[in-house]
Amino acid sequence: MAEPIEKVSIVISKGSLEGVYPGLIMANGARMEGIEATLFFTFFGLDAVIDKRMDHLKVATVGNPALHIPTIVGGLPGMSAMATKMMSKEMEKIDIPPVREFIEMIHDAGCDIYGCKATVDMFHLKKEDFCEQVDDIITVGDFYEKSAGAQIIFT
Amino acid sequence: MAEPIEKVSIVISKGSLEGVYPGLIMANGARMEGIEATLFFTFFGLDAVIDKRMDHLKVATVGNPALHIPTIVGGLPGMSAMATKMMSKEMEKIDIPPVREFIEMIHDAGCDIYGCKATVDMFHLKKEDFCEQVDDIITVGDFYEKSAGAQIIFT
Amino acid sequence: MAEPIEKVSIVISKGSLEGVYPGLIMANGARMEGIEATLFFTFFGLDAVIDKRMDHLKVATVGNPALHIPTIVGGLPGMSAMATKMMSKEMEKIDIPPVREFIEMIHDAGCDIYGCKATVDMFHLKKEDFCEQVDDIITVGDFYEKSAGAQIIFT
Repeated sequence: MAEPIEKVSIVISKGSLEGVYPGLIMANGARMEGIEATLFFTFFGLDAVIDKRMDHLKVATVGNPALHIPTIVGGLPGMSAMATKMMSKEMEKIDIPPVREFIEMIHDAGCDIYGCKATVDMFHLKKEDFCEQVDDIITVGDFYEKSAGAQIIFT
Repeated sequence: MAEPIEKVSIVISKGSLEGVYPGLIMANGARMEGIEATLFFTFFGLDAVIDKRMDHLKVATVGNPALHIPTIVGGLPGMSAMATKMMSKEMEKIDIPPVREFIEMIHDAGCDIYGCKATVDMFHLKKEDFCEQVDDIITVGDFYEKSAGAQIIFT
Repeated sequence: MAEPIEKVSIVISKGSLEGVYPGLIMANGARMEGIEATLFFTFFGLDAVIDKRMDHLKVATVGNPALHIPTIVGGLPGMSAMATKMMSKEMEKIDIPPVREFIEMIHDAGCDIYGCKATVDMFHLKKEDFCEQVDDIITVGDFYEKSAGAQIIFT
């Protein structure tokens, strides 16, 4: 018998809306199944837990051919805001909440949330810049320690 | 003795040609080694198994400095089509088939192929929109269940 | 007791500066904790170990809303060079060395470094094109074999 997934340790490294949601959805899905979950935000992914930024994440409208928007159009001012509004609306329809609310929900469900120390230092951030759900700012070494027994999923 | 990799559960989340191939190559490589493999398409990655789109995936010619094309050139109409043609040609030379054929081959080799329910709902898609190799549309919870004993690889 | 992470097998598939660093930082962090580590460079990630290119990796200034630079500005000539200079400076401040030096350091710390054969063939590269830290050019099958007992982390 194959061993069931009992714990996941999910890294969120991107700061676009479509770069953040997959990791959140996987963390939430894990908790709903009784699977232990940890979220580790690093690099641009930190934007998703920075208090002043987390409500303003945007969809990247260039560099993603699957959006089916020509670069020359996707790069126009306002396009990203429009795509973001559309995606948020579709998310809402399938009961996926906005980032802040989703993070509160996932944290309430028992998922630990951490920020990456190296990136926090690099971007000159402080613990106070983050939403209250961020349990701690930890090193990569700490991350590995907390990932004992987990599947590491880098998104 | 370290435990050999016996099963991989590969998530494909991007819809550009260069975003889809690594996951397909890893799934195919796994099957060739007798390693069990599952493919799970989510977010823009779904494009790779949508019947009307899978033959038209494109290379992103902006947002990737490693392509060595200035953004101002990469964003011009036709550039993505040209880069796609070039990459497809190089792929063919090293015996990597086009996406549709590759997916058929991987599926024939015993790899299960799934679409992500949340994204399918978000994009208003139906089971009929997918190529016949898609075995089922499943939730993230189902995905974890099917990943028992596997290394989860998010691409 | 949950089983500690004892080995990581990190795939680097992107060639932008911010696409390469997370994998390097995770490999370095692993070695510093006494965790076994392997690096596998594939697709555009190969740029980070190509002798003539590894000193010139650039930040992508479009397609990443978390950079907070409008696409129309991010696409201007010179923007990527400027953002690259800024990021490199911040990296230096937190004691993260430039890519070449970092790879030497990680390799010296006992991390094996491999290039992906399929991509090497696709891009018409040769073993001589790579920095000396690249131990070998291996297939995906070899990669899985070398990943026995490891957490596979795709970045």
